[in-house]
Amino acid sequence: MTKPRLDVLAIGNAIVDIIADADDAFLAAEGLTKGMMRLIDADEAVRLYDHMGPAREISGGSAGNTAAGVAALGGTAGFVGQVASDQLGEFYRHDLTATGVEFTTAATDFGVPTARSMVLVTPDGHRTMNTFLGAAQHLPVSALDEAQIADAAVLYLEGYLWDPETPRFAMVKAIDVARLAGRKVAFTLSDTFCIDRHRDGFNGLIDSGKIDILFANEAEIRMLAGAEDFDAAVAAVSAKVETLVVTRSEQGAIAVSNGEHAKVPAEPVAKVVDTTGAGDLFAAGFLAGQTQGRSLEDSLRVGAIAAAEVISHYGARPEANLRALVAARLG
Amino acid sequence: MTKPRLDVLAIGNAIVDIIADADDAFLAAEGLTKGMMRLIDADEAVRLYDHMGPAREISGGSAGNTAAGVAALGGTAGFVGQVASDQLGEFYRHDLTATGVEFTTAATDFGVPTARSMVLVTPDGHRTMNTFLGAAQHLPVSALDEAQIADAAVLYLEGYLWDPETPRFAMVKAIDVARLAGRKVAFTLSDTFCIDRHRDGFNGLIDSGKIDILFANEAEIRMLAGAEDFDAAVAAVSAKVETLVVTRSEQGAIAVSNGEHAKVPAEPVAKVVDTTGAGDLFAAGFLAGQTQGRSLEDSLRVGAIAAAEVISHYGARPEANLRALVAARLG
Repeated sequence: MTKPRLDVLAIGNAIVDIIADADDAFLAAEGLTKGMMRLIDADEAVRLYDHMGPAREISGGSAGNTAAGVAALGGTAGFVGQVASDQLGEFYRHDLTATGVEFTTAATDFGVPTARSMVLVTPDGHRTMNTFLGAAQHLPVSALDEAQIADAAVLYLEGYLWDPETPRFAMVKAIDVARLAGRKVAFTLSDTFCIDRHRDGFNGLIDSGKIDILFANEAEIRMLAGAEDFDAAVAAVSAKVETLVVTRSEQGAIAVSNGEHAKVPAEPVAKVVDTTGAGDLFAAGFLAGQTQGRSLEDSLRVGAIAAAEVISHYGARPEANLRALVAARLG
Repeated sequence: MTKPRLDVLAIGNAIVDIIADADDAFLAAEGLTKGMMRLIDADEAVRLYDHMGPAREISGGSAGNTAAGVAALGGTAGFVGQVASDQLGEFYRHDLTATGVEFTTAATDFGVPTARSMVLVTPDGHRTMNTFLGAAQHLPVSALDEAQIADAAVLYLEGYLWDPETPRFAMVKAIDVARLAGRKVAFTLSDTFCIDRHRDGFNGLIDSGKIDILFANEAEIRMLAGAEDFDAAVAAVSAKVETLVVTRSEQGAIAVSNGEHAKVPAEPVAKVVDTTGAGDLFAAGFLAGQTQGRSLEDSLRVGAIAAAEVISHYGARPEANLRALVAARLG
């Protein structure tokens, strides 16, 4: 097999984050659960925005953040996602291509604007996301470029894609194309609420052997396995995938791959400003490490370095030179 | 005279800042002079954006920043400026009203989008601005609410408004309405390139006695006066206005008002991240101080505190609780 052109091709919801500070009282008054991502409709998007404080807009979206992270780490990355022909869509395309990510999905007008997520950041750095999917939920199977999928070492998918039916079909089709081409398929569980909505679908995907690399955090792996005990949950799920990566916030991360176990501590962070993108950048670091031939443990380390950088500032895309940070630490 | 409803009514270009990091080599390759604001057309806006790195969008505009600062300092503020009916225009209105600023100018479609300024921030924190005025340059006299102007203690105007003819007419009309109502008129020279473009117009305004409070930095006051010597420039210009405020970056600021001289040092800043908005927030602090009955020196201090906060992060609007910062320092 020839060396694939792309290290990672990520498919996900193309979302611009609208980030504002908020306090716990605001979350309580709005009936929001800290750390969750909820899907909202256009009316709720307008209502909540009217209540929110001044904001900054920064391109985001889970898989898009991961693609940007892979590129910032010196890898080659592509992204597939649906934006509308509007200013948010232009921002999204600019920001992703400016990081060096290949993003060729055409903007299309489905009568709804580009997706945005109103991210409320509390003083403890935690983010609560209110996502209006807009155009992103219309990503059609026809937007896929099969040759591009076949030419990427890893196809990376976010669990959030499972929410609306149209991109779910696109995701399932992309998995089939990647597997037929002999590529790896990576998947992130996204968040516990997403698992709660789609547990059967996610378990079906995993049980069918279509996922090679699975990313989860501690709460997510417990919820997916339906097990209170962390070790039991890891044992149950790792038996079904070639590689399982579980992030544990301040406790670092673990991986189990073909019977090999690895574990790293979290990287130190001077001040946690905004945890948005921590998991996305961890996945970017791990995949960049793996596609660059690093060991399982060093791949986890690259993930931890990338995650530490992104939580030290607002926004879910790297601002520092990640490649230099990793080179300084790991060579 | 009854107490006016607003402390400050600011009129200016309604601009969303699109902020990206850039190095000196990028500025050189683009032929840009560090620290300047240049006006660009739609084609150049597209061309430069294609070359720029990933960005964050934050509402800005000089006078808008000042209005947001006055509100953040506990004052009552209004803003007049032209946005289009698009996503950038919605962001702009949201961010300003979310700070408590009265912004009632209707969005209008002139066939051009809401203004944006591509702000390139170099590692030393200096910003180089590339502004596409779009809808902002169409602010018509008819957008003015004369009752609102008459009900503001201070009318505040940015020199940038002088660039296109239409908002210049609106500005001149607003000055007349404010003076007839017995209100103060404040004006900022904006930047040296703006003075270079409009020296005669600015001197005409000042010589005619229509400006009560003039804001400038060191380079601007020298350029306006056509004097190399700082003290000579201050003496020449302060003779023509009731109050002159001059900011001197790391050297603090001075004011001359009806023969009284005041001087304050700069507030310490842990790390200068982005100097965008320093002058705007200094003006906000000074005007908030004056309208809240503080002394000339303490008004300068409020300005220095507000400016120090805004240069410690990206974006030209305050993020910390300015009112609390000032109360902690000055009571």
